[in-house]
Amino acid sequence: MATLLCVALHALPEIKEGDDLASLIADSWLAAAREDQTLAPRPGDVLVVTQKIVSKAEGCVVDLTTIKPRQEAVDFAAQWDRDARQVELVLRESAEILRMERGIVISRTHHGFVCANAGIDASNTGTKDIVTLLPADPDASATRLKAQLPALVGLNDDDPFGIVISDSFGRPWRFGIVDVALGVAGLAALDDMRGQPDADGRVMRSTIVALADEIASAAELASGKTSRQPVVLVRGAPGVGGDGSVTRDVVMPHEMDLFR
Amino acid sequence: MATLLCVALHALPEIKEGDDLASLIADSWLAAAREDQTLAPRPGDVLVVTQKIVSKAEGCVVDLTTIKPRQEAVDFAAQWDRDARQVELVLRESAEILRMERGIVISRTHHGFVCANAGIDASNTGTKDIVTLLPADPDASATRLKAQLPALVGLNDDDPFGIVISDSFGRPWRFGIVDVALGVAGLAALDDMRGQPDADGRVMRSTIVALADEIASAAELASGKTSRQPVVLVRGAPGVGGDGSVTRDVVMPHEMDLFR
Repeated sequence: MATLLCVALHALPEIKEGDDLASLIADSWLAAAREDQTLAPRPGDVLVVTQKIVSKAEGCVVDLTTIKPRQEAVDFAAQWDRDARQVELVLRESAEILRMERGIVISRTHHGFVCANAGIDASNTGTKDIVTLLPADPDASATRLKAQLPALVGLNDDDPFGIVISDSFGRPWRFGIVDVALGVAGLAALDDMRGQPDADGRVMRSTIVALADEIASAAELASGKTSRQPVVLVRGAPGVGGDGSVTRDVVMPHEMDLFR
Repeated sequence: MATLLCVALHALPEIKEGDDLASLIADSWLAAAREDQTLAPRPGDVLVVTQKIVSKAEGCVVDLTTIKPRQEAVDFAAQWDRDARQVELVLRESAEILRMERGIVISRTHHGFVCANAGIDASNTGTKDIVTLLPADPDASATRLKAQLPALVGLNDDDPFGIVISDSFGRPWRFGIVDVALGVAGLAALDDMRGQPDADGRVMRSTIVALADEIASAAELASGKTSRQPVVLVRGAPGVGGDGSVTRDVVMPHEMDLFR
């Protein structure tokens, strides 16, 4: 029976700029494997790593006391009881504003992600005036972890092994946030089943599954939000060993977007 | 270590209108438990059931040879190489059309779901001219399964036990479909963490996790699309024992929708 297993690894120490994230993650994984040997690294495993610790390690962190908001940010913040400096940062991180209503800015970031408040996050940063930005290139962040981790955990470089950098995004039309993939490495971001027959032998016309996003969502269920468990081992996921990219494969080009 | 386990149960027989779906699902679950006793039903378990078999059992199935398309459907189908009868059905199942472009109708269904082609599906129906509609009330479908299944699998009626009815939806701005919840029973649809402190003791302002949608996505990874494994056991999910409803809790009211 096809099985997917998601296990939240132990908390990492508080991450600071310049920390060797791959080594800290490897230590956490190997510690888990000492407690439960079935968790020892295997070919086919995926690690889902929250954006927050990647941003911290890469120094994608801003001290709001250094930010001088423009008038538009001051007005919007006053109207909706928000922090004008944070609104200013959101505007700076946005390539295109889609909506600015009810205290939320929905924009397309420089990466092409459409999300609320440009992915800027004030929670779990350790200090009130510190916020994290999204990593500059989450696929590249994933690729670096994918290159470093196998040697640190006893996998071979050519073993199938995947990394997902995840974040929580809202969606239109449905309440609640879900975790999605900002970046991947060693994994297909999409599972393109177009042209494959279904169980009746009928060709499936438009079935492209957003694998990496589903993996991020599955991992979130194991990790939770309030705890400091930013790394989840996912075992049994399809697509491991693929060569995906969120920016190239998942982000929809401007001209195909029906909902600007 | 917090763990989520998703296991696709064995294929069910081809489902027909009037079939006792709860009994067929119970048989499949108990057969899996005979092969692997760790899969025996436990309090806290969730079953994710794809919309397709619920629709078939409830008779939400249409023979396209009985459908006479209106001119608008004929024209749209001709322009985009689609089946005019199916386009006609999509229009009938829609309360509001949001976009009609590139062969896809994005609409709000009578339930309030915004999705492509009103959730009408021609794959895996067994016959070329047969399509499935969404269940008339997926929360009610889930509630019926939630009422029937415990006694069939040896759980107590008051054991926490959840049902999710799932379907695959596209999203704006990102390629690929992800499975979401159409209906739930015995489970919180949302995990409302507003007012709870994060790991630094800061109150999280707007963290409402779409639990049921994430559970549906996790289950999809275990089941796959081409196989006939329409039921997935999910163990370790948060929110089991809650009293959620997708229609009441997740579907965003018209007036809050920024992206009509």
